[in-house]
Amino acid sequence: MTAFLNSRNAVSAAADPRWHAEAGDPHIVKRLLWTPLLPPNATLVSLMKGVELGTAKRMSEVIAEVAGAPAERIAVVSGPNLAREIAQEQPTATVVACADLERATAVGHASFTRYFRPYTNTDVVGCELGGAVKNVIALACGMAQGMGFGDNTVASLITRGLAETARLGAVLGADPITFAGLAGLGDLVATCSSPLSRNRTFGERLGRGETLEQAQQATLGQVAEGVKSCRSVLELADRHGADVPITRAVEAVCFRGTSPADMVSELMLRAMKRE
Amino acid sequence: MTAFLNSRNAVSAAADPRWHAEAGDPHIVKRLLWTPLLPPNATLVSLMKGVELGTAKRMSEVIAEVAGAPAERIAVVSGPNLAREIAQEQPTATVVACADLERATAVGHASFTRYFRPYTNTDVVGCELGGAVKNVIALACGMAQGMGFGDNTVASLITRGLAETARLGAVLGADPITFAGLAGLGDLVATCSSPLSRNRTFGERLGRGETLEQAQQATLGQVAEGVKSCRSVLELADRHGADVPITRAVEAVCFRGTSPADMVSELMLRAMKRE
Repeated sequence: MTAFLNSRNAVSAAADPRWHAEAGDPHIVKRLLWTPLLPPNATLVSLMKGVELGTAKRMSEVIAEVAGAPAERIAVVSGPNLAREIAQEQPTATVVACADLERATAVGHASFTRYFRPYTNTDVVGCELGGAVKNVIALACGMAQGMGFGDNTVASLITRGLAETARLGAVLGADPITFAGLAGLGDLVATCSSPLSRNRTFGERLGRGETLEQAQQATLGQVAEGVKSCRSVLELADRHGADVPITRAVEAVCFRGTSPADMVSELMLRAMKRE
Repeated sequence: MTAFLNSRNAVSAAADPRWHAEAGDPHIVKRLLWTPLLPPNATLVSLMKGVELGTAKRMSEVIAEVAGAPAERIAVVSGPNLAREIAQEQPTATVVACADLERATAVGHASFTRYFRPYTNTDVVGCELGGAVKNVIALACGMAQGMGFGDNTVASLITRGLAETARLGAVLGADPITFAGLAGLGDLVATCSSPLSRNRTFGERLGRGETLEQAQQATLGQVAEGVKSCRSVLELADRHGADVPITRAVEAVCFRGTSPADMVSELMLRAMKRE
């Protein structure tokens, strides 16, 4: 028996849940009162992305805490899964990650269709981290595009963004190979390429010289997820001594008055090193 | 002292070569008569991508053979480096790979500018393979776009395409981490995203239902690089028993009359497995 915990970006088309709890913001999870309704051995499936500000906890950690469930019962679904395209039945692949491979496989079989192809993985930390950092990198890609740069620049940011995600993952115990997979690279590429991505379009505004306030006004008060995530991801990286230059640069543009042009120069002119 | 061996897609803006040999097609290299002119200890820098049809040799292997130079003297430059954008001085990163790290570092320093950031790597096999297979994957992405599919599908193809490149690399002795880097992921993303990419636009024609001959006529007789590469990459994979389902599918569309729609169904409906 499986309960799905969805975010606003949920892949609800992918599942046939017995329970279905919408959570537009990670913080809302804590306020949900559904935990007494969960069967004792239910698999909890998280479709949320992000790191909690203040505690630097991943979403499955928050769920474990709120539901009092062990990590083995919590699965995470992540990948290049823009909801609108799934609703249109466009072919895509995804990852179902769970420390318990049997549960991952069961969730995979439950969601397998001719247009939705799940792969299983036991690296929950890596899959969740990919989903959390991608919004920050998408913001950086948007800034570069807003400054008029092209595909080389964006591809470089995507690649080095994934490298810093993998570095952070390494100190948190993730498998580096996960980041080359669907929940790392796949989700990142879909998010950075899509004109549907709010992070990219928000970044474009910043890249064209708008302030955070101006960009926020233009988007009817909404702030892109990456603006919030850059602070919590940076917090997580600083706690563990991981080097995350792009995340740090995005945070500096959003909250410290650094211009996007200075951000690009600084990223490009660091000392040469091994890949 | 460094001699640059460039292909049509060369990053000539990146370098200050003493010698500069243009080679529009990998096969032309063999016909060049410059080898007596090379100083005995020159570093040979290859900017060519591809695998030789018939011999399944990488470009640095062809150069080693023609120039009679040991692998330690041959460097490879690869990454998200669309030539037109480099000429416009748009920021990008690249990889200089050489078995001899000192030579890689020297080439890197020679080409470092405020918009061109080289990283060094000693995995020549991985860097060359990334550049060879990306054109095949870009062709597959183009087909998906020609069929009307969106960013999820393309991101899934990019990710699983990189996974099959890494599998092929593993049996050839490459470091799997290279494929998550600039010469793997970076080059692949730039090629698959760029409207400048002939492979993508050629694939779009096939995806809309044109035959290879029709697409070739529409592009003034030119065949995209990926059409040639899918055969030599498949040859290399079959020699070493590597599983490359996307490359095999692209080859089947180009040369065996498989329709792009059948290709997509077949790729999506294979048995579920671990990532």
